Amino acid sequence: MYTYKTLVWGLDGIDVQELSIAGVAGLECSAGSLGIKRDQSPDAAAFVLPRKSAYAGVFTSNVFRSACVDSALTRLHAGKEIRAVLITSGNANAGTGLAGRADTEMMAAAVGEELGCAADEVIVLHTGVIGVPLGAKRLLPALAPLLAARSADREAGHAAARAMMTTDTVPKTAVRHVDLDGVKGTIGGVAKGAGMIHPRLATMLSVIVTDIPVASPALQVALTQAVKTSFNAISVDGDTSPNDSVILLSCPSDEAGSFTPGAMVRGTQAFATFCAALTEVCEDLARMIVRDGEGATKFLEIVVTGAESDDDAERVAVTIATSPLVKTAFYGEDFNPGRIISAVGRSGAAFDLAQLRMQIGGLSVFAEGLFLGVDPVAAREVMARTDIVIEIALGSGGGRCRFYTCDLTDGYVRINAEYTT
Amino acid sequence: MYTYKTLVWGLDGIDVQELSIAGVAGLECSAGSLGIKRDQSPDAAAFVLPRKSAYAGVFTSNVFRSACVDSALTRLHAGKEIRAVLITSGNANAGTGLAGRADTEMMAAAVGEELGCAADEVIVLHTGVIGVPLGAKRLLPALAPLLAARSADREAGHAAARAMMTTDTVPKTAVRHVDLDGVKGTIGGVAKGAGMIHPRLATMLSVIVTDIPVASPALQVALTQAVKTSFNAISVDGDTSPNDSVILLSCPSDEAGSFTPGAMVRGTQAFATFCAALTEVCEDLARMIVRDGEGATKFLEIVVTGAESDDDAERVAVTIATSPLVKTAFYGEDFNPGRIISAVGRSGAAFDLAQLRMQIGGLSVFAEGLFLGVDPVAAREVMARTDIVIEIALGSGGGRCRFYTCDLTDGYVRINAEYTT
Repeated sequence: MYTYKTLVWGLDGIDVQELSIAGVAGLECSAGSLGIKRDQSPDAAAFVLPRKSAYAGVFTSNVFRSACVDSALTRLHAGKEIRAVLITSGNANAGTGLAGRADTEMMAAAVGEELGCAADEVIVLHTGVIGVPLGAKRLLPALAPLLAARSADREAGHAAARAMMTTDTVPKTAVRHVDLDGVKGTIGGVAKGAGMIHPRLATMLSVIVTDIPVASPALQVALTQAVKTSFNAISVDGDTSPNDSVILLSCPSDEAGSFTPGAMVRGTQAFATFCAALTEVCEDLARMIVRDGEGATKFLEIVVTGAESDDDAERVAVTIATSPLVKTAFYGEDFNPGRIISAVGRSGAAFDLAQLRMQIGGLSVFAEGLFLGVDPVAAREVMARTDIVIEIALGSGGGRCRFYTCDLTDGYVRINAEYTT
Repeated sequence: MYTYKTLVWGLDGIDVQELSIAGVAGLECSAGSLGIKRDQSPDAAAFVLPRKSAYAGVFTSNVFRSACVDSALTRLHAGKEIRAVLITSGNANAGTGLAGRADTEMMAAAVGEELGCAADEVIVLHTGVIGVPLGAKRLLPALAPLLAARSADREAGHAAARAMMTTDTVPKTAVRHVDLDGVKGTIGGVAKGAGMIHPRLATMLSVIVTDIPVASPALQVALTQAVKTSFNAISVDGDTSPNDSVILLSCPSDEAGSFTPGAMVRGTQAFATFCAALTEVCEDLARMIVRDGEGATKFLEIVVTGAESDDDAERVAVTIATSPLVKTAFYGEDFNPGRIISAVGRSGAAFDLAQLRMQIGGLSVFAEGLFLGVDPVAAREVMARTDIVIEIALGSGGGRCRFYTCDLTDGYVRINAEYTT
């Protein structure tokens, strides 16, 4: 039912299947099997930059987190520069205690040895099943051939984006080119994630690289801001995972490197341009994750305005986005404003029902405390769309939120009832 | 797949299909069609007591609420005594403005006229589709025959419990007999609800009557307390509705009426006995609602202990109970402790992962920060059960919570994708 072709990513005039992260900032990619997945399908993706690079990261807020998140945070807090990121899929290395942490570090050291850099200049991220020992030692022999095969070719980027996938049905890549006072730069990112998706990240991993020279403090500011309206504004099922990580690396090329470093700090026009482009990359990837939501057939955009605060607006948006009744109604193409208003009513946000106005797909459905009559033909046309916007104006203040989710389908239930440990 | 017979209600030695609310405190019941449902199937249930009775009520906390909740609250706040409750199904009379309120009051007045009492001595509750005008006027002619047919026979109670149903698959009745210093009394209740079920009520309606003489202030105390561990401790899908109401009426019989009224106030042993029995009736009905959860095949009991506070314990329980990943895993009979620990980790409750201990169906699965090896045969046996208990000890304090939920199935998705306005 769902196909990559019919759900357009919103990148006007760009064939997203052609996008590749390989080559951006000189990045070399590689994909292969380390033997985590029993069927020998690709379960590892390597991302190697030509030089050590400034590093920023945002991670899961789940108290229960994978050894790989602890490992990546240690490097972040120590201000380390990073040369490579290795992502493995099939085993989350979470709930595995000290042995799990040792497994992650053993793999980082082995990658560092191949590349001629220190273990703490390598980030290793895992995704997959929780609570099963990773057993890194048996995976090490396959690392050398994986890294040796790396390349800056477009195809290598595609293969790496594909090797990250678990229940994803399509690889996810976004690229933006920016012009900073005549100096050209590029930001490219890949992501994986389809279930366990919710604000404050989810079962998602993303690696973003740029050749624009940004030092790590400013890089962290830019990433934190970009995540707010992208990866933190999506929900597939309200669940989050112990492994969620977004890694941003800045590895200046010679040309972009000639850009005055002082210009890339907060408050400058160049930095604002960089932040805007980075946000677009993150939002592209976030929307791709929702579109590829497990079993999803509809992409729902929820726009809440007029709330007493941004937090109140988010409460309303999240309550709608996680309501099984709302999500199943869209799946059934049932025009059901009552379920949405019920969700708004229990969100905890302060508002006056008499001031609330709601539109679904541009059709006014609620005003002055009453449901409005809607032409059934127009309602059917709206519900038949793949992309539907729900707009709610609370009439209480200036708070706002834009949020993305998908429908809840028997496909989601099947995928998650059958995905076993 | 789901049948009434295989999911036992926990009423030892009692055939719950034999239970009836009719006759309790002299209650007469009736069921029939007022013409709300087009197929002329039963859409109205009447509950008539011999005399005006002390009244307590608990209602939805949703800001968006039905005209019938406003109407019932007005009577509660005015300290009215109640003679009858009429429940109609098929239309929620919510989001229908002043005309909706007038519709509810018109029906209350018509019932009062038939019974020879005032309109504000009658409570009318609705359940069904949101946002469609009820059009009470056309329903009035059928009220007289409905009320004329009322009876205290067991069968009349069954018919009324059945007429309340929307997506319910079984009627829900609970009865408790109590002995107060040799004076015997009875508490009987009926409920409906299967989807839109969550703490702070849901798409549920319940009417409970007793012949034990309790004045309305104490009656309200008893009901509020009983709801806390019953209707407010269940979740099917995390959604709540604008119509949720629990009505409790005390209509003393001659025998129970001879009980010293002063004994039925807070602090007495008799009142404590009454409260305990009332809580059991509410918990029976609440568990029946979860067992009849839309599409449910499993009944899950979540017991959280050792939290820093009861609120923290509830946060953990609710997060598990509303996690689609946890609920689909149980549906798939996939022994997946990782998804439960992930839910605990994102609940917002304060705890130390190293202190957390978890059991599923009596099997220890997590301790000292690690997942424990579990015999696959034992795990399969647990997952094959219909009733499964998840026990989580946080090791942080004395806070606790017991919560009930069901699994998430493609049956739920089908029911809610196809149930149209």
